[in-house]
Amino acid sequence: MPFDYIPPLLRASEKRIVLLVLDGLGGLSIEPGGPTELEAAKTPNMDRLASEGMLGQTIPIRPGISPGSGPAHLALFGYDPIQYEIGRGVLESNGVGLHVGPGDVAARGNFCTLDANGNIVDRRAGRISSQQAAPLVERLKTISLPGLSTEVSLVKEYRFAVVLRGEGLQADIDDTDPQRTGVPPLPAVARTPESESTADLFNQWIAKAFEVLSDDEKANGLTLRGFSTDPNLPSFQSSYGLNPVCISVYPMYRGVSRLVGMKVVEFDGEQPEDEFAAAAEVWNEHDFFFIHIKKTDSKGEDGDFEGKAKIIEGVDAALPTLLALNPDVLIITGDHSTPALLKSHSWHPVPFMLWAPATVRPDDQTKFGERPCARGSLGNFTALDTIPLALAHAGRLEKFGA
Amino acid sequence: MPFDYIPPLLRASEKRIVLLVLDGLGGLSIEPGGPTELEAAKTPNMDRLASEGMLGQTIPIRPGISPGSGPAHLALFGYDPIQYEIGRGVLESNGVGLHVGPGDVAARGNFCTLDANGNIVDRRAGRISSQQAAPLVERLKTISLPGLSTEVSLVKEYRFAVVLRGEGLQADIDDTDPQRTGVPPLPAVARTPESESTADLFNQWIAKAFEVLSDDEKANGLTLRGFSTDPNLPSFQSSYGLNPVCISVYPMYRGVSRLVGMKVVEFDGEQPEDEFAAAAEVWNEHDFFFIHIKKTDSKGEDGDFEGKAKIIEGVDAALPTLLALNPDVLIITGDHSTPALLKSHSWHPVPFMLWAPATVRPDDQTKFGERPCARGSLGNFTALDTIPLALAHAGRLEKFGA
Repeated sequence: MPFDYIPPLLRASEKRIVLLVLDGLGGLSIEPGGPTELEAAKTPNMDRLASEGMLGQTIPIRPGISPGSGPAHLALFGYDPIQYEIGRGVLESNGVGLHVGPGDVAARGNFCTLDANGNIVDRRAGRISSQQAAPLVERLKTISLPGLSTEVSLVKEYRFAVVLRGEGLQADIDDTDPQRTGVPPLPAVARTPESESTADLFNQWIAKAFEVLSDDEKANGLTLRGFSTDPNLPSFQSSYGLNPVCISVYPMYRGVSRLVGMKVVEFDGEQPEDEFAAAAEVWNEHDFFFIHIKKTDSKGEDGDFEGKAKIIEGVDAALPTLLALNPDVLIITGDHSTPALLKSHSWHPVPFMLWAPATVRPDDQTKFGERPCARGSLGNFTALDTIPLALAHAGRLEKFGA
Repeated sequence: MPFDYIPPLLRASEKRIVLLVLDGLGGLSIEPGGPTELEAAKTPNMDRLASEGMLGQTIPIRPGISPGSGPAHLALFGYDPIQYEIGRGVLESNGVGLHVGPGDVAARGNFCTLDANGNIVDRRAGRISSQQAAPLVERLKTISLPGLSTEVSLVKEYRFAVVLRGEGLQADIDDTDPQRTGVPPLPAVARTPESESTADLFNQWIAKAFEVLSDDEKANGLTLRGFSTDPNLPSFQSSYGLNPVCISVYPMYRGVSRLVGMKVVEFDGEQPEDEFAAAAEVWNEHDFFFIHIKKTDSKGEDGDFEGKAKIIEGVDAALPTLLALNPDVLIITGDHSTPALLKSHSWHPVPFMLWAPATVRPDDQTKFGERPCARGSLGNFTALDTIPLALAHAGRLEKFGA
């Protein structure tokens, strides 16, 4: 349980919480004294909410730690990623709807290009499209191993997920991606004696995969990483008494949401307004709405400062649709920072806004941005505190002790 | 020990620390952008101290958690209430001077009104006065059980404390208050096999109590709650090397102070100036003074914004008496927030001021209030850090390591 002291305090409530996550929201100035991406963006709606609400900054994992997307979201959901380690294989598999049960082992796969000697010449197989990868994944699905079942699913472009289902499979296995070209993929090597037989099974699967892929020009090889099994996380429902739903375009975020027991909804479109419309569709069926916006992070990774600011402006422009639903508690934040300046995830604290008209103690900040957040009344705090704060402002927690 | 690393660092000192707790001090604005209770109050003395001292905000238990009075004070004293769980029975009993030793079990009692069928019609017996309750408590004192001794004491109005003293009594017993009217009081039910014989003893005591109360018009029944035994807390003296005293009008706060080994002084009057005069009386005998003001919380619970501000003004007006004693370290804070807007304890951070002329690093804040505290140099921190900070500013801690 993320917080042992919370379940005994839970109180029934009709109040609804929205956690709107702009992936990689935190940024940096590209010139001394200049604005960050969020500060450069014109965000009249968020600025109004900031005036009425409270600001602060979250530390995603620990100070100085740049988180991956999985751990950063787990932290936002209150599950300390230092305590709850979850492999990329499980995250990706869940993201594309492949369940990973106890005893199963999942891995994330990359197609790659091998030369005549079996050395890697392109670790991402020329970044083939999803369309190009789909028939290759079909070939991988034909592979069978004695005594167990396997499932493979396309993730996106050159990425796929594979799950071996058996009894007592163990996942302490090193990645087969050598992280460079000019050398062959590594074999699956067990880190513990208990994982050796599972590593053998994966090596058999890999050998058969190389056979079925051998005549493809670009994707004639593959690497596997993030071997992992069911983390058996306590559910959001049992931890917080919430009936949560995930609204996300990208598989990874759906995966991590499923791991904590969120329902994941299907919807058309990829824009913020499409996501907010999806929230409206299920508004009466849930009381916690995790809405994930991916493109802030993508633009940050691309080093596209203005592009990231535009994405934020797009979310701001769509916000009235979400506000029309009358959430009782609205949190707008990121899972981590992805400053365009750095073109990567970073460890910088993440802007955080909590708006809850009935119970906020407003600070005197009037804009949503890194500087105002650094001066906000919530101060700097761990992302793990996000859900407990939301529960409190939703009137969902009884007093602790008499 | 609250902080294992502190006792080896303790250094003898003559310096005196005052912890002035205005119960439920933290508040909220009642109109958008308006002042909180503390900000609305005219507090020239506190404002001067704030100018000279340092401000911050404490998190009483954990973010989002609204604390009861017992846990909130334990936290201020440095004892993490998540780690040190203490029942209401023990707190109340200690508050009225009933010691609860190992093997004893204490409970908090409420007189209630039963109808002819034994169903509760008033859970607080019409809120009878202490004067009305006193003879009823005398009747309860006449009850004897074979093989053990019992003690009963009036707490206030319809509330009393009862302690069963025996050998190996166990306190895992559910409250007998059904929390509603129209049904009879519940029997004492053990949650563990080890507590069953103790629950039986309490049920015998309850049966006899119903007999001796049966002819009273209002208080012909009772309920018990917070069954608990000696928490065996490490003392303030051994934890911090301090010789502490509690100055409080209300029993609960005396109780929690006794639990950590504070001396509790008797004094006349209920006003801040009476409490400060009591501190003056024992000024030379102690080096740590916990002074508790209750009425800020009471007014907050009543939803009386202006009343709460007036109480704060009253404390401020009396402050010169306290300052005339020349404390070396003065902390003014609350145990939690009780915003009049919410009429209840809340999870909001608590204004905190530390004044210590010899060692403060002043921030640029010039008023005592929620907004200045949110901008103060102490930042947001857990209430558990209060005593270590006080010890440091009193020159009572050696350097850690060479």
